[in-house]
Parts: sequence; C-alpha cells; structure tokens
Amino acid sequence: MTTGSVEAGTVYLVGAGPGAADLLTLRAARLLGEADVVFHDALVPAEILALAPRARLVAVGKRSGRLSTAQNFINKQLRDAARRHRIVVRLKGGDPMLFGRAHEEIDFLRRHAVRVEVVPGVTAALAASAELRVSLTRRGAARSVSFVTPRVGAGEAPSRWIEAVLAADTAAIYMGAAEAPRIAAALIAAGKPGATPAVILQNASLPGARLLAGTLQGLPALAQALARQAGEGPALILLGEAYRELAQSAASAAEPAPERSSGNG
Amino acid sequence: MTTGSVEAGTVYLVGAGPGAADLLTLRAARLLGEADVVFHDALVPAEILALAPRARLVAVGKRSGRLSTAQNFINKQLRDAARRHRIVVRLKGGDPMLFGRAHEEIDFLRRHAVRVEVVPGVTAALAASAELRVSLTRRGAARSVSFVTPRVGAGEAPSRWIEAVLAADTAAIYMGAAEAPRIAAALIAAGKPGATPAVILQNASLPGARLLAGTLQGLPALAQALARQAGEGPALILLGEAYRELAQSAASAAEPAPERSSGNG
Repeated sequence: MTTGSVEAGTVYLVGAGPGAADLLTLRAARLLGEADVVFHDALVPAEILALAPRARLVAVGKRSGRLSTAQNFINKQLRDAARRHRIVVRLKGGDPMLFGRAHEEIDFLRRHAVRVEVVPGVTAALAASAELRVSLTRRGAARSVSFVTPRVGAGEAPSRWIEAVLAADTAAIYMGAAEAPRIAAALIAAGKPGATPAVILQNASLPGARLLAGTLQGLPALAQALARQAGEGPALILLGEAYRELAQSAASAAEPAPERSSGNG
Repeated sequence: MTTGSVEAGTVYLVGAGPGAADLLTLRAARLLGEADVVFHDALVPAEILALAPRARLVAVGKRSGRLSTAQNFINKQLRDAARRHRIVVRLKGGDPMLFGRAHEEIDFLRRHAVRVEVVPGVTAALAASAELRVSLTRRGAARSVSFVTPRVGAGEAPSRWIEAVLAADTAAIYMGAAEAPRIAAALIAAGKPGATPAVILQNASLPGARLLAGTLQGLPALAQALARQAGEGPALILLGEAYRELAQSAASAAEPAPERSSGNG
C-alpha cells in the first residue's frame, strides 16, 4: 500500500446504464455519491458524473474508433487507486458484464488482492425496448434473444455472432452500426431473410434518441441516414419479427424515416 | 372515463430488477413513490413494495407453477386504473421487456387509448453475473449471449431455444430450474457437450442467494440439490466456457457445493 494509514479500498465496477441519469440503479447512485475516484468510459454523460461530487473523475476510454487508454494501464490505475482510497468506482456504459472488458479488470484486481464488487446496470437493448415499447420476447412467438457484437480485435478468434443471430428469434447487435453494410451482407449470405424487420436506435433513453426502422437488406441505408442526421452516440441494431409493425409504420411514413424523439432537431 | 374530474393516467411498466431494492433504477423508485396504484408480480419483495407508500398494492401473479391472475383480467384492471388514477405502475420482476407479457399489456392498453411508458430494469442474468463476478462475454472468447426460456404454453408453437443456446458462446436460461433434467437432456441430445460448465443461481442480489456450479450433464443433480437446500425463488441457469473456473472450484470443494452468500443458512 502506498499509505499505511488508509485501509485498502474496494473497486466497484458499476453499470452507468444507457445514458439517462435516472436509469442508474439506486446502488450505483449511492456509490457515485460516496466515491473517492471515478474512472469512467468516455461516453458516460456529464449528468451522471455530476452524481459523484466528491470524486476525482478520470476518463479512461473507450470511445469507438478512437484512441483509448490501454487496458493494462486502466487495470494498474484501478489497483493503485484502491490502495489509496476506500471507494473506487469504475463506471461503464450499460451493464459492466456485457461486452465490456470487466473480465480483464476483475482478473487483474483479484490477482493483486484488491476487492472487487460489480453493480449491474440497464443494458442498451433493454433501454431500447423500453423506448420503442416493443418487447424483445413475445409469448408464443419470440422466446429467444441473442446479444452479440460483430467486433473482433486484431489477433482474436472469429466470433460466432452470425450463428447466434440466426438461431434466435430476436437479435440485439451491439457496437455494429458503423459496420452495417458488412453485418447485413454477412447475415443475408448466411440465410437470414433480407426482409427481416430491422431497427437502429441511437442514444436510447436520452433526449436526442433517434430511431430508424426498415429491413435487414435496407440496414446499410438506415445506418447511413443515421450517420447523416445524427451526431455521435452508441447505436444498437435490433432484428426480428417483433419489429415488423414498427418497420411497417416507418416504411409507410414519409422520408426521412420518423424520429421518435423531438430532441436534438 | 369513470370519473370526469380526474385526468386519464399513464400506465408505467416498470422493471423491479432482480430483487435487491437498491437495484431498482432511480426512475422506478421515483414512480413507485408517486404511484396511486401498483400492480405487482407475486415475487416482488416487500422491501421494494415499501417504496410505494401512497399506492394501493395489487398482487397479480405470476408465480411459476401456481394459479395466477389471467392476463386479460390484468389488462382490464390496468386500463380501469388508468381511468381513475394519474400514475399506475405495473411492476414486473427483472426487466419488463424480457420474458414477461409486457407485449400483451402494451397492445391492450394502446387499443384502449391508454398512455403506456416502459421503465427498463436490471435483468436476472446481469444481476447473476455481478454476483458471480463472471462476465457474460469475454474479449476474444465469448462474444455472443443467448437469453432463452424453454417454457412453452399450451397450444403455442415450439420454441427454438435449443438452437439459440447451441449457437451462442454463453447462454442464460430463464425459468428453467424446475425443468433441469429435460433441459440438460435436450441440449446434450442436440450436441452441446455434457462437460459444458453450468451454473444455477437462485435469488441473485438477495441475502439468500444460492449458487451451485458444475457441468451441463450434472445440471439435474445441481437443480435437485438446490431444491433440497433452498426455499423458493427465481433461479437462472448459465452455461458456457465463461463458467469453467467457477465450476472447477465448485467441483474441488467439498459436498455440498459452496454457497456464495451466508444468508438464509
């Protein structure tokens, strides 16, 4: 320990939820209020960081496609902070245990005998479903949901995301909007009907939420339209028959496809 | 409207989260505090219902395997309540949009011109992952997760849950513990290795949480041990290589398999 007088602290891996500050859990809000230091993803909104008035705030990536703090450096910062502070929060967008690198942080901290607790959060697919008011599952019709990401790092084994999407009634594709043409082509080549209803939702739960709906074969055009219209922000792709009604009402509306929210013009 | 003097209200479908009261979202807690009436699943803990001091509380099922209020009757109660009250909360365990019957409630209420909002919640698989401190995904190794339920109602089309489990790196099986023998047999017959690491977690996030870990072929025995040891409570099955370390440490420990929590004996 760096200082002998302070007892070693705990690192809390905390889900920040989808973006709206009031979609944090009560536990997450309490821990932020008590935190000495908060290491947060770049995309966590300022309104959420404001819940940690006592804490030193440290941005540690990851912002899709940009330079971010190397994982090993984050791990060491967390360990060092836990040696100096009682409550260290690692604040991650959505839920920490789905498509983050929580696994690496937990392993590292445990190897260094640092206490780790995880506080779950509302993940993007659930926030999107709430925003759309369309359930991911449907009694008697949609009873399986795949959460996948098509992103594969350099040197990593290829992901089985295509099989997982094909096998489930509903699919939620994380971190995929920028690769929409590749995703649509790969799924259609693997046998997913091009007419499968598809939705892209950006900034679910925030005032600037944007929704575009159509079909899998039209996904690249939807993603392009989204990129033209909207600023940055995490976008989620949803696929499945559950979205047929939504996709049809979008198709019957005038171009450009309707926004659900009036925020951000 | 039943009374002309009160403006028609809104029905909020609210996720109660996995069980711990402080894993509600801030928004859910606020709405409970303001609610005039709360229709809640039978399994929502009293500590959560206590957050709604103003509200009339109405239990409306569904408790697995027991008589529960017919869905159509719930729908009508929600509609009628929205005609008399400003804030009507339909409180559902976990997240409302995953394996609930939110779809039927939303459809009915919209047909009757009742405003509906959905407040997402922390779903059981994320709470379980936090409790276990094992991520559902793992960079370069587990990049797809299936959420399935093997439950099929009378007269419903067969579910593709087996395919969805086989195709994903990690699987979360909801409402399946009571059918563990059938689940294990069906998955093994379909080609899932019997040695696949398996975890059953009951009451994740609550003091009486129970964890049993082993393999898919040992799942029936794990479920039986859980039923012997523990009282009632929703249990989740997790499958995949992500749980190998956990399953191995459980196997090397003495019988009975270790509890994670010291609560409830």
